[in-house]
Amino acid sequence: MNIDNLLKQIRIVLVDTRHPGNIGGAARAMKNMGLTDLYLVQPKHFPDPKASARAAGAIDVLEAATVVDTLPDAIDDCSLVIGSSARQRRIPWPLLTARDCATQVRQALNNNRVAIVFGREDRGLTNEELHTCHLHVHIPSNEQYGALNLAMAVQVICYELRIACLAEPQGNDTMKGWDMPLATAEELQRYFTHLEETLTAIGFLNPVAPKQLMTRLRRLYLRAQLDSMEVSLLRGILSATQGTNMK
Amino acid sequence: MNIDNLLKQIRIVLVDTRHPGNIGGAARAMKNMGLTDLYLVQPKHFPDPKASARAAGAIDVLEAATVVDTLPDAIDDCSLVIGSSARQRRIPWPLLTARDCATQVRQALNNNRVAIVFGREDRGLTNEELHTCHLHVHIPSNEQYGALNLAMAVQVICYELRIACLAEPQGNDTMKGWDMPLATAEELQRYFTHLEETLTAIGFLNPVAPKQLMTRLRRLYLRAQLDSMEVSLLRGILSATQGTNMK
Repeated sequence: MNIDNLLKQIRIVLVDTRHPGNIGGAARAMKNMGLTDLYLVQPKHFPDPKASARAAGAIDVLEAATVVDTLPDAIDDCSLVIGSSARQRRIPWPLLTARDCATQVRQALNNNRVAIVFGREDRGLTNEELHTCHLHVHIPSNEQYGALNLAMAVQVICYELRIACLAEPQGNDTMKGWDMPLATAEELQRYFTHLEETLTAIGFLNPVAPKQLMTRLRRLYLRAQLDSMEVSLLRGILSATQGTNMK
Repeated sequence: MNIDNLLKQIRIVLVDTRHPGNIGGAARAMKNMGLTDLYLVQPKHFPDPKASARAAGAIDVLEAATVVDTLPDAIDDCSLVIGSSARQRRIPWPLLTARDCATQVRQALNNNRVAIVFGREDRGLTNEELHTCHLHVHIPSNEQYGALNLAMAVQVICYELRIACLAEPQGNDTMKGWDMPLATAEELQRYFTHLEETLTAIGFLNPVAPKQLMTRLRRLYLRAQLDSMEVSLLRGILSATQGTNMK
């Protein structure tokens, strides 16, 4: 597959962006690096003249952007979802540098749509949003002044993605030649909902005091990169469990 | 040497910047990656509230920036000068990708000050400016839409510099353990002036129709990365040549 077609499979998702200039800057950064698929989750101002001005010659990327209401709407058809995270969270998630992220995305690209998700200018992504992601990515930066401008972060990630796609796939691709397509974000979300219902039904999960149970289970299954058949199998187990429980 | 001290030896030079927002954006990008040394050659508007706004928490880098009138004023004390160039020129110059540039800078950093020079938003650096540089660097980008915003280009280069400085020096450092310091840009410029005078005096260079002679000689000697003693030696030869010629 040529580089243009590879890069077109990568979606950039901006969540809850406050400053329209950053949306335009991100669109330009994407197009400079050959990416075209932009999703905006509840942007505060869009369309907006400031976004168009900053986009410059990438106005086509901006005009083709898809505006949606929720993060799942932006990632449901993606099989690999990577969330941008400035710091390690209380429950650590697999965390990649920008470069390793690009290598991993390159490996996944042959059959799968990939989303990279960026959060708010001031607060990034919420924990809930981050817990819908398979992996997290951060850009190594000055410990004393680490927060990159949103459009700059998009620029660095898209740059690394382009460089990785210019090269042959590298690294240890443990899922190479897999016999089933990876599960999409939507399939995984249905599984997690099913799992939570089942664990509640059997009294293992107390909805009043859920603790970190679902977060830890999400992390486990997302890390494993389930394929579609495995998700069907796991859901079959859940249905059987609920059926037993109802008797 | 720790990473902070390494990165402090790298100077970012912005030539003839039109939009003060880009100066602020560049300052922030630098600080995010741990760089602090910013030179501005004839900025159109500086200081300026738009620069300060975009700099955000990097206002200290902006306030410490040195404003100068000419490019030589900005690079005279540097032993490695790398110019940002979007395209190959008529007389090809050694051209590095952003990543290879960072590797090369990392190798040079132990004893030398390095400058990375960025040109105008719309036209980049002039040929004359590019011919004062040892090497050129470009950021691989979309052939159909390749021109990055100035501050974005600074971000990508500074990011690569930080990553290279986080690692051990790599690659084939052919100048490792050199016994003399590399010549500074000022020493080299004096040499080139001396060379041009001498070649004119001996009738080899016709000032009315100089063709590309000096450009080709600059390229040769810059590529060779002369040390200070070699420059003294070459200038001794020039003086001797002129002395002979005067008799």
